[in-house]
Amino acid sequence: MRSVAPADVAFDRSAPGRETSREPATVSRGNTLPAAASSPPRVVILGAGFGGLEAAKALADAPVDVTLVDRQNHHCFQPLLYQVATAALSPADIAWPVRAILRDQPNLRVVMATATGIDRDRRHVLTDQIALPFDHLVVATGATHSYFGHDEWAAVAPGLKRIEDATRIRGRLLAAFEKAEVTTDAEARRRLMTFVVIGGGPTGVEMAGAIAEVARQTLRRDFRRIDPALSRIVLVEAGPRLLPALPADLSAYAEAELRRMGVEVRTSSAVTSCDRLGIVMGTERLDAETLVWAAGVRASPAADWLGVESDRAGRIGVAPDLSVPGTAGIYAIGDTASLQGSDGRPIPGIAPAAKQMGRHVGRLIAARVAGDEAAASRPFRYRHHGDLATIGRRAAVVRIGRLHLKGFLGWLFWSLAHVYYLIGARNRIVVAFTWMWSYLTFQRGARLINS
Amino acid sequence: MRSVAPADVAFDRSAPGRETSREPATVSRGNTLPAAASSPPRVVILGAGFGGLEAAKALADAPVDVTLVDRQNHHCFQPLLYQVATAALSPADIAWPVRAILRDQPNLRVVMATATGIDRDRRHVLTDQIALPFDHLVVATGATHSYFGHDEWAAVAPGLKRIEDATRIRGRLLAAFEKAEVTTDAEARRRLMTFVVIGGGPTGVEMAGAIAEVARQTLRRDFRRIDPALSRIVLVEAGPRLLPALPADLSAYAEAELRRMGVEVRTSSAVTSCDRLGIVMGTERLDAETLVWAAGVRASPAADWLGVESDRAGRIGVAPDLSVPGTAGIYAIGDTASLQGSDGRPIPGIAPAAKQMGRHVGRLIAARVAGDEAAASRPFRYRHHGDLATIGRRAAVVRIGRLHLKGFLGWLFWSLAHVYYLIGARNRIVVAFTWMWSYLTFQRGARLINS
Repeated sequence: MRSVAPADVAFDRSAPGRETSREPATVSRGNTLPAAASSPPRVVILGAGFGGLEAAKALADAPVDVTLVDRQNHHCFQPLLYQVATAALSPADIAWPVRAILRDQPNLRVVMATATGIDRDRRHVLTDQIALPFDHLVVATGATHSYFGHDEWAAVAPGLKRIEDATRIRGRLLAAFEKAEVTTDAEARRRLMTFVVIGGGPTGVEMAGAIAEVARQTLRRDFRRIDPALSRIVLVEAGPRLLPALPADLSAYAEAELRRMGVEVRTSSAVTSCDRLGIVMGTERLDAETLVWAAGVRASPAADWLGVESDRAGRIGVAPDLSVPGTAGIYAIGDTASLQGSDGRPIPGIAPAAKQMGRHVGRLIAARVAGDEAAASRPFRYRHHGDLATIGRRAAVVRIGRLHLKGFLGWLFWSLAHVYYLIGARNRIVVAFTWMWSYLTFQRGARLINS
Repeated sequence: MRSVAPADVAFDRSAPGRETSREPATVSRGNTLPAAASSPPRVVILGAGFGGLEAAKALADAPVDVTLVDRQNHHCFQPLLYQVATAALSPADIAWPVRAILRDQPNLRVVMATATGIDRDRRHVLTDQIALPFDHLVVATGATHSYFGHDEWAAVAPGLKRIEDATRIRGRLLAAFEKAEVTTDAEARRRLMTFVVIGGGPTGVEMAGAIAEVARQTLRRDFRRIDPALSRIVLVEAGPRLLPALPADLSAYAEAELRRMGVEVRTSSAVTSCDRLGIVMGTERLDAETLVWAAGVRASPAADWLGVESDRAGRIGVAPDLSVPGTAGIYAIGDTASLQGSDGRPIPGIAPAAKQMGRHVGRLIAARVAGDEAAASRPFRYRHHGDLATIGRRAAVVRIGRLHLKGFLGWLFWSLAHVYYLIGARNRIVVAFTWMWSYLTFQRGARLINS
């Protein structure tokens, strides 16, 4: 399964024709479909997430026609989705139109369409809009939530992957307090004011901490018949500790901080069932109106489209150069790919890894088109910069190599890092300003229930 | 129908009992339901729009229990909804949680519920959540779109009254360009790139101008196969001129500016039918994917709830003191009320009028509770400050008394006035910054298609 694909063969065959035909990409600007015989090599990138965007940028100066496909019109900065879900930021603060990001790349066009399959023989990507022929294909379609075979839980315990997920969770969270304010049934009120986050990874920790701040700070004085500060917030983790990817001391700090903020942390507790009324952990039933799923992810069905093997999480085991074994000129990156780093540990499903993979694949394709076969199959080397997760106001955990940061310093580092990685000066300024404002006023600027 | 209601009678009867029972509002803080015999008079305000909010604020120091009811959790600044619909602002920039706005008013509680009726005999407001007993009632439920008996048009030609309307229109507007980019059918492309705004009032003029800017400026360089600048934008008005509420010279200026921006202005053209494929004006058919309805409004069904007469637009003809004829202690304000000003002209359905009415009714109720019968039936005097509408970048029309402003000056005045009237320093700063940014970059910060 790890055997390198005969990609070069496939390309030697057709390379000469292309060499002679190379023309300034700006002439056709990738808008001739179907491509004429004389047109430059066609690169299709599926997905405008962190990986797809980087792959596209890495091809900016290559004599190719790039088509970037996404079902959304925007790139979403997923690490801050939880802040939209907890009314701290607006969707537009963490989402940018893909077209605007890549406007100045003349050899690229963006197609908003939903991929439905890949025709490997005819080398076409199939979408709900059009079929897109490719010479080189980058599959960067990411992952979605995994309910471990209980897809019926999705309706009651939404996960947090897209803008729509975040606004739905925000609406449920805020509506629960509104319902609690008008109900006369004490039992129902308790249930309405109980919030359960399932999964103790970074997203789960961030959600639980943010919900606690909404209840104990933001809404503190907004109600008359209920006291939001009395809300019950439960973070459930099946494993023995929170943030398993981080060292034990930082996990312990995160748990202690959450407890200080009034979050019930339940480690070594597997959720055995979710329904409209709450969750079940083994023999224990927990009534709650609002459930948030942060437990597991599953790769997009790219493996099925390609008819190749995948691991338990649906990811494609890629070759060291990120190509898909048994295919020609097809690469998988980010959350759709599975590969071990030089340290033998699997490369984590985080934004920096996806970006590095995207950049690498973009360069490989550029090298191949340039005829530099040596560079065109260079293996991917993952550089792990660190891990971080925020817990709440002035509390975050950061691990960079041997350096462990906690508390205010960690929080400051986390904030600066995230503002830095946002796209566009406007969003950096607005988000930084909004965070400062919230820090000083304890308020959240996007408390909308949109039904 | 204009005969003054016997309101005072009804209140003289019960006033003494209340006088003796007056207690600090903070004791019960309006959270005892049903109210004990000893509790202060109960004021229910239906609707947290411009009128309802002002009525609530005017009662801040009165010894009453105020319950403010709205089906949304937020107050929406409707004059800027068109900027959300055209991706310039985020919903949260023009919407605030009602609770947060009135947090510091201890004699008030907010209930998020949808009014379903009014029981005049038992003096209860009926909602989908609870029944709310009242001694004084302020009906400020506003208006919705009117399709002149063709409600089936609503699905194809959405209006612009709520945040949801704005984000829906934004999605259709942006999706039309996305679909045009991938279609290979020239006919379909023309239809997708045609945008029709129906109604030449301020909202229609603002929408048409903003759509023109989106197409000709914001998206100019974002597509490869289509040129958004070639979009067709049509503004249809049944009457002889745009902005009928404004003097003729300003109407003429607005029309000229819109034409300069490439908007087709079709006055004296009544829309006789709307469907999925476009509109029909008499014998002429106009194919368009995106329709926006800005033609007519109809009051909420408050008149039916109260079983009183209403005019053709569904508004309740109120007495000079804004009380509802034939009722005791029930007032109607804003877009649900119809009244002539001292100049004999009907009071317009604009935010300043609603705010003035709300303030007036709040003061009447406070006076009545204080036993000041003279002040408790003072007639409402409307002060018309002026009219304004923006057309686009550096183009707006303003009329304040005899002063007529156009172009850059009008636009500057319009911008400052709207920033001033926003609620909360944070939103003022963010909106002002966003506008400056857009002015300098021609970009729009909220280009999201949320399906």
